[in-house]
Amino acid sequence: MKLQIALDGSLQDSLEILKAVRPYVDIAEIGTPLIYRDGMIAVRRLRKIFPDLLLLADLKIMDAGEEEATIAFEAGCDIVTVLGVTQNATLHSALKAAHYFKKQVMVDMMQVPDLNSRASTLLAMGCHYLCVHTAYDLQATHNIPLSNIRQLQRELADPPLAVAGGIGPDTIDSVANLNPEIIIVGGAITRSPDPVNAARSIRERMNTS
Amino acid sequence: MKLQIALDGSLQDSLEILKAVRPYVDIAEIGTPLIYRDGMIAVRRLRKIFPDLLLLADLKIMDAGEEEATIAFEAGCDIVTVLGVTQNATLHSALKAAHYFKKQVMVDMMQVPDLNSRASTLLAMGCHYLCVHTAYDLQATHNIPLSNIRQLQRELADPPLAVAGGIGPDTIDSVANLNPEIIIVGGAITRSPDPVNAARSIRERMNTS
Repeated sequence: MKLQIALDGSLQDSLEILKAVRPYVDIAEIGTPLIYRDGMIAVRRLRKIFPDLLLLADLKIMDAGEEEATIAFEAGCDIVTVLGVTQNATLHSALKAAHYFKKQVMVDMMQVPDLNSRASTLLAMGCHYLCVHTAYDLQATHNIPLSNIRQLQRELADPPLAVAGGIGPDTIDSVANLNPEIIIVGGAITRSPDPVNAARSIRERMNTS
Repeated sequence: MKLQIALDGSLQDSLEILKAVRPYVDIAEIGTPLIYRDGMIAVRRLRKIFPDLLLLADLKIMDAGEEEATIAFEAGCDIVTVLGVTQNATLHSALKAAHYFKKQVMVDMMQVPDLNSRASTLLAMGCHYLCVHTAYDLQATHNIPLSNIRQLQRELADPPLAVAGGIGPDTIDSVANLNPEIIIVGGAITRSPDPVNAARSIRERMNTS
């Protein structure tokens, strides 16, 4: 299991937190709000400071797969996100860019109505990861859909899953027990009064689950 | 009818084109690729140079409505886009930011399966514009859905529509005949060998249709 830290705060704060928690994380996500604010400047800064860290740009591509994915791959990202609700043409076109750059595509499954059949299609297309994601605006009212994830794992014979959305100290054990390939944690680390301790603790609980 | 120019190229190219075509356009769109590359730096540059021009940030919000819309409104945008396929919580939360800043939300209807009923819901929620948008990756194989637009106009008694996606000299008349509130043109102006002539010609045909 890999731990991905979602960086959504200011670029300066994000850099400081990432420097501090670097030993505990495998992937740094340049979150959508950070991209909205600083664009690929954020990616290039992170790439320069962390030449060996996996970087994911949470672009949530929906419109122009190849062109938009290329922007992030050229800036130094290893993985871009595309929305699962987008048309297949956009997924194919983002995957074309990924193949060209020898990089990867994670599909964000937010709002996908038919999770299992869509997941099956996306894996057949060659998408590298599927992210089961509870939207920020739903986290107050919706739990992490553990049973949907279990069903997906059963029906698709261990798909390459990421899980995201409000994961923190109270929920890390239940998510880690599912053994997804990637666990994505944002605010529980970045908005913690002690990000290093939060990251270490989450990492430890991933290792022992 | 307003003409919105979608700026997707480099910031420098976009600024030069916008300066040249300014007399013919009502809204400048900071396109998703431009946001991915330069973030709110692009918005602030445009706002500084064009203090009175309506600016739209094509964020295609899907996750955290209030927080993400606020980033663009604080940078000087007048309108942000939210995806119509997103959960209502995100639309409500983006609208909350719009009300706070006295700004507007345009909903991008890409991949919305039940166009008319969703449009009706979105207008009841208080969304300001609905954009019927042919995705970039579908423009080679899909025409502008004129009959869907006509149906939407009939059933919803003249909704505040924008139309986008591959509109150019060959299609402007058919779109302008529908009299939507906003017509969005990108490449047909920005990638034209003569952007000023292209913008003037499209504007004239909007005026005479």
